[in-house]
Amino acid sequence: MSDNKIHPSPSRRQFLAGLTAAGGLVASGGAVALAPTTDPTRVQGAATSAVGSRSVHEDLGRLQPPAYKGAISLTPLEALHGTITPADLHFERHHAGVPQIDPAHHELLIHGMVDKPLKFTLDELKRFPSVTRTCFIECSGNFNTRAGEKSSPKMLCGLTSQSEWTGVALSTLFREVGVKSKAIWFLAEGSDAAVLARSIPLEKALNDALVVYAQNGEAIRPEQGYPMRLLLPGWEGNTNIKWLRRLEISDAPFMTREETSKYTDPLKNDTARLFSVVMDARSVITAPTFPQTLDKGWQEIRGLAWSGRGRIVKVEVSVDGGKHWQLAHLQGPVLAKAHTRFTLPWRWDGKPAEISSRATDETGYVQPTRRQLIDARGPGSQPYHLNPVMSWLVQGDGQVMYKAEPWV
Amino acid sequence: MSDNKIHPSPSRRQFLAGLTAAGGLVASGGAVALAPTTDPTRVQGAATSAVGSRSVHEDLGRLQPPAYKGAISLTPLEALHGTITPADLHFERHHAGVPQIDPAHHELLIHGMVDKPLKFTLDELKRFPSVTRTCFIECSGNFNTRAGEKSSPKMLCGLTSQSEWTGVALSTLFREVGVKSKAIWFLAEGSDAAVLARSIPLEKALNDALVVYAQNGEAIRPEQGYPMRLLLPGWEGNTNIKWLRRLEISDAPFMTREETSKYTDPLKNDTARLFSVVMDARSVITAPTFPQTLDKGWQEIRGLAWSGRGRIVKVEVSVDGGKHWQLAHLQGPVLAKAHTRFTLPWRWDGKPAEISSRATDETGYVQPTRRQLIDARGPGSQPYHLNPVMSWLVQGDGQVMYKAEPWV
Repeated sequence: MSDNKIHPSPSRRQFLAGLTAAGGLVASGGAVALAPTTDPTRVQGAATSAVGSRSVHEDLGRLQPPAYKGAISLTPLEALHGTITPADLHFERHHAGVPQIDPAHHELLIHGMVDKPLKFTLDELKRFPSVTRTCFIECSGNFNTRAGEKSSPKMLCGLTSQSEWTGVALSTLFREVGVKSKAIWFLAEGSDAAVLARSIPLEKALNDALVVYAQNGEAIRPEQGYPMRLLLPGWEGNTNIKWLRRLEISDAPFMTREETSKYTDPLKNDTARLFSVVMDARSVITAPTFPQTLDKGWQEIRGLAWSGRGRIVKVEVSVDGGKHWQLAHLQGPVLAKAHTRFTLPWRWDGKPAEISSRATDETGYVQPTRRQLIDARGPGSQPYHLNPVMSWLVQGDGQVMYKAEPWV
Repeated sequence: MSDNKIHPSPSRRQFLAGLTAAGGLVASGGAVALAPTTDPTRVQGAATSAVGSRSVHEDLGRLQPPAYKGAISLTPLEALHGTITPADLHFERHHAGVPQIDPAHHELLIHGMVDKPLKFTLDELKRFPSVTRTCFIECSGNFNTRAGEKSSPKMLCGLTSQSEWTGVALSTLFREVGVKSKAIWFLAEGSDAAVLARSIPLEKALNDALVVYAQNGEAIRPEQGYPMRLLLPGWEGNTNIKWLRRLEISDAPFMTREETSKYTDPLKNDTARLFSVVMDARSVITAPTFPQTLDKGWQEIRGLAWSGRGRIVKVEVSVDGGKHWQLAHLQGPVLAKAHTRFTLPWRWDGKPAEISSRATDETGYVQPTRRQLIDARGPGSQPYHLNPVMSWLVQGDGQVMYKAEPWV
């Protein structure tokens, strides 16, 4: 970037004018024309605190769409940097609200096809060998097919967030209870008022499932399942049962309401997919996006890419509506089943542009287009597991709009 | 761990008794003898929120030692898991409090031995190519030589925390202003009331220094330098200038108050170290530690290790006062200049034990003992850059105490 003119020239002129106006800003020891209240070196600052607060100049929060009546909140993807989602901004999707659970009254029961059923308190779980892992959780309904051009990334797909999780390998707990050899499924059940329950193949438990009690260093937040939740890396959010209270081991799936009437994907010809639990590879541009207005010149195209099947190996970005694609830089370390930050420097010349991104994961899966998804599954295959390439239209005046297209 | 009896047997007996008392907990659909107010499945939970809160059952906060009058707060290392420190629990060390800065009135000036001095607003910084990196920041005075046996890890060394930081490579900004060929140092200055300033070798800027504006996904917290701070991975905290307002490039160090009268290490024979800025490798056990009381049986020894010189390659743990050492497991990914979580399963047999840890980094540096440090530098070399192996005494009743020894 050394020879690129990253600043638009007006700001450079302003700067030089400012330098002159300020005179010896440094040499005179700070004699700069600032009102006393805006010069922070002139007043003693605030004392330390037990728990910090955000700057009053930052307005961060989850979007709560009124139509979902307190059951959904969306992570403001376009306001965030890096890959970690602050715990208090992790998206929410609740089926009966956030229960208030006192860990002194909470136990995890593991029973069914086991040698010896056991219950585990939070303190007991914490004595077991711990595992820490950074990965995303994404709701399977994380694409708004009815979004209009004035949609920001969070409105399109803010139901994905990432944390560093710590807990116990489910395989460790299953060894404790002694899973019988004919078992191949287990039920995971939450202690919210919906008693949300899903059937999970035992193989996932033996692979990489965790029961987690910590998120980004601290105890899991109540909205994320306090005091403990199931973590199934790469699998759709609702299977990562929050407020986990029961695991029942079995030789068949339980066919719960949430995996038959809900979380089943209708396909073409009156068929449907059951247990479509793995989240497919995807990418989302976070900047430039609506409601930004661009200045001409250099900026950075930024976004997140992830796959429930492993590592992201490639993110391609087009600025001409898909005619040409460039490789974006992937910020390391690139972790499996984790949000991966991608970036690409771009110089906007003031002409209309269409910006898109597409991800490829280590299995070779390439993020599909809207047309490919509709052709493969039919337009009625909604609202789950839709991960189309999305595009942003930069208009001549710099206004960025989502390229909204009907799902037909 | 499959054949280890991790639960103390009383809790197993309690569990089986509980199962009988509860009757068909599952089969009867939840007919368990819980008061209605403690059964979360019986009441609709709370709605979503814009910004989440911690569980009322968790009491997390930074310790503010009264003797430091609001200038220091300590990260509760023993209460945290994984490697990320929540932003609102990141340690604090302020020289004149936390300034309240409106980014609309804040600029970063880069001047001195440059082709063209420039100022950068926060918005301008964000247009540059971004870099995300997870690393620790540790205060150079992060060891309490006067700690007593009733000291927890935060009281001993809570002046270290870790975040995922995002910002601009300082080398990018220095290319913009055009650093002259004879320059080899630069001054970094904060806009707090202390106008804290340090001289930094230019080599560090060209290597891995960043000007960061985001921490764990969101804008940097005011206590951490909002709207922007210098990040010098692996270097002592005070050089990572917060509320950064000025970088002056030069051919010599500036010999500021903070690098002459302060942050200089007295050594033996009336000598001293200046610019001792790299944080040496270190490890800290976070459990078991004071004020825990242990039950017999299996538990996990846990801690953090880090080095300002690169990756941690080895953490050894002793449970017999240093006679024998075992290799702890390092939780991946192991990142350079980053807190690394180590764990070791341990079965406490009820007898007195002494637990210690020592870290080795990729340069081959081994964390020294208290005696090695005192012999090398003299007992008067305080309070900076003390990273001794620390030990914890498990008494016969399970009470864990810090092994306090005088610094002589």
